[in-house]
Amino acid sequence: MRGTLLYAPGDIRVEDRDDPRIERPTDAVIRVTAACVCGSDLWPYRGIVAVDGPAPMGHEYVGIVEEVGSQVNTLRPGQFVVGSFFASDNTCEICRAGYQSRCVHAESIGAIGTQAQYARIPLADGTLVAAPDMPSDDLIPSLLAASDVLGTGWFAAAAAEVGPGKTVTVVGDGAVGLLAVMAAKRLGAERIIAVSRHADRQKLALRFGATDIVTERGADGVARIREMTGGLGAHSTIEAVGTRESMMQAVHSTRPGGHVGYVGVAHGVELPGLELFFSGVHLHGGPAPVRRFLPELIDLIMARTIDPGQVFDLTLPLEQAAEGYRAMDERRAVKALLRP
Amino acid sequence: MRGTLLYAPGDIRVEDRDDPRIERPTDAVIRVTAACVCGSDLWPYRGIVAVDGPAPMGHEYVGIVEEVGSQVNTLRPGQFVVGSFFASDNTCEICRAGYQSRCVHAESIGAIGTQAQYARIPLADGTLVAAPDMPSDDLIPSLLAASDVLGTGWFAAAAAEVGPGKTVTVVGDGAVGLLAVMAAKRLGAERIIAVSRHADRQKLALRFGATDIVTERGADGVARIREMTGGLGAHSTIEAVGTRESMMQAVHSTRPGGHVGYVGVAHGVELPGLELFFSGVHLHGGPAPVRRFLPELIDLIMARTIDPGQVFDLTLPLEQAAEGYRAMDERRAVKALLRP
Repeated sequence: MRGTLLYAPGDIRVEDRDDPRIERPTDAVIRVTAACVCGSDLWPYRGIVAVDGPAPMGHEYVGIVEEVGSQVNTLRPGQFVVGSFFASDNTCEICRAGYQSRCVHAESIGAIGTQAQYARIPLADGTLVAAPDMPSDDLIPSLLAASDVLGTGWFAAAAAEVGPGKTVTVVGDGAVGLLAVMAAKRLGAERIIAVSRHADRQKLALRFGATDIVTERGADGVARIREMTGGLGAHSTIEAVGTRESMMQAVHSTRPGGHVGYVGVAHGVELPGLELFFSGVHLHGGPAPVRRFLPELIDLIMARTIDPGQVFDLTLPLEQAAEGYRAMDERRAVKALLRP
Repeated sequence: MRGTLLYAPGDIRVEDRDDPRIERPTDAVIRVTAACVCGSDLWPYRGIVAVDGPAPMGHEYVGIVEEVGSQVNTLRPGQFVVGSFFASDNTCEICRAGYQSRCVHAESIGAIGTQAQYARIPLADGTLVAAPDMPSDDLIPSLLAASDVLGTGWFAAAAAEVGPGKTVTVVGDGAVGLLAVMAAKRLGAERIIAVSRHADRQKLALRFGATDIVTERGADGVARIREMTGGLGAHSTIEAVGTRESMMQAVHSTRPGGHVGYVGVAHGVELPGLELFFSGVHLHGGPAPVRRFLPELIDLIMARTIDPGQVFDLTLPLEQAAEGYRAMDERRAVKALLRP
């Protein structure tokens, strides 16, 4: 099959790779309908995270079940499925508490690489969620978004305890931040303040339900949010950037007793303990347990209640994966969809 | 009146100070029945926090209302009252959400200094809670504990979402940690693991409801807790020390999706963002809104359901305050009570 490999920073190639096959009886092999490039794929691409290339890439995917192992009970070939970036058994105590990304048997899909024609998905019964029927083609981008960025935005909003009557700030206008706006809207937030400096992303944020746009960052951004909230700060803040500045902007934009949901992975970031302490906020985040939200998200998409696929502003054939990476690296695209 | 002053690190004196008087119509003046030395009083005493001496000391207190300002409506002279270390109006939006220590009109009682015969308490209606009747003398230590260490331990347990059926770890065996054990027991925890190396404190933890004692710290402590919890970690962890090591021991002792309540103020502590992220825990803490818990705690103490006064293992007349500081500094005492 054809699949994407990262040889070294900046060096993405699409080459022949071995066809995946069932290795364990709980595996499934899927034919990938669509995959995409993630913001986190840019870390090794930019050399921020070391890579021992050539490494398979990609951990977002939708596809059609091709083959299942002998112990897979809930799936059959021909079904359209959505998974997420961690395989999980969905039965252990951690999974049952809703933290499938930290399943005691969790396996990273990133090591498998879904920017390819086929992929082996471990723990298929727990990991994959089948759509009720075959989605029409125009729903594919939205279902693919559910696989990571939508599920992550949803988790961030849930972690920030977004709910009716609340004022919510979203720090970060990448795909996750924008879809967190969508989640906040769906979860009933009264006011949604999107922090963004880019006209096209502001437009998408407003379309997804933002009621206000703030362009200031850091201390100025905090001052602006406080001014808009009677001096108190937001009830809920979603952090979807992952720098010390964005984290502390999120914390200080939130009122004492409020909630910060953070999903920007914080490489090398140290957080000031005393500032966290005196902020009095709740802090929750981590690698999003997307699996928790998949059944609901698939239903909302199949019913055309939400349309998260709008975050894909570039669609390429898999063979042009390198251009997808370049466009995202240079911020010419919010998110690139790859069609094998 | 007589009152405690810190002149310089290590130099505590009891001297004549001006009698406090009503300065604003919302003030009350109380005659202090008992005050005490707090772990946080040791920071300036040890020179960790700069002090511009002579500075009045003390922020924990119970006493009898002596005089009230013209706008104080709920209190009258002669009532026995308990307050906490922040004055709060108890009516603003932040107070109503239960975060009175971050009241929009919050004032620090520490600047007033309650290690004295009398104290002026601002925002008396919001700050002070009257006991239903005059407590007998043996209840004074417990009511004084409610003023800070008990309320802080209770908040830590609430922040850690302690509840029935849960396994709770308590990192820290000072007065706050020990009383967090009491809170966890009262809140229905199934298993309470106290981390302590001191035989006398272990004994108190067991008396307060601890079911297990762990003596290991750091990575060894984490390994031990994981071993005791089927490899998963505790549901809830209370951090009551305030170092980077203790914070990260608490975080890593907690299962993904679990809750860490932290009340050890973290001076100069930086926390590793990526470790927090991948832990997947909820983090909540800060200066405890003790006022939220005072009515319930006073009831429990007056009914003799709980006896938190046991944490005081040294009682001195106010004139010997310096010895109270020394004993706590040298860890000869868990907590020193001062009788004016």
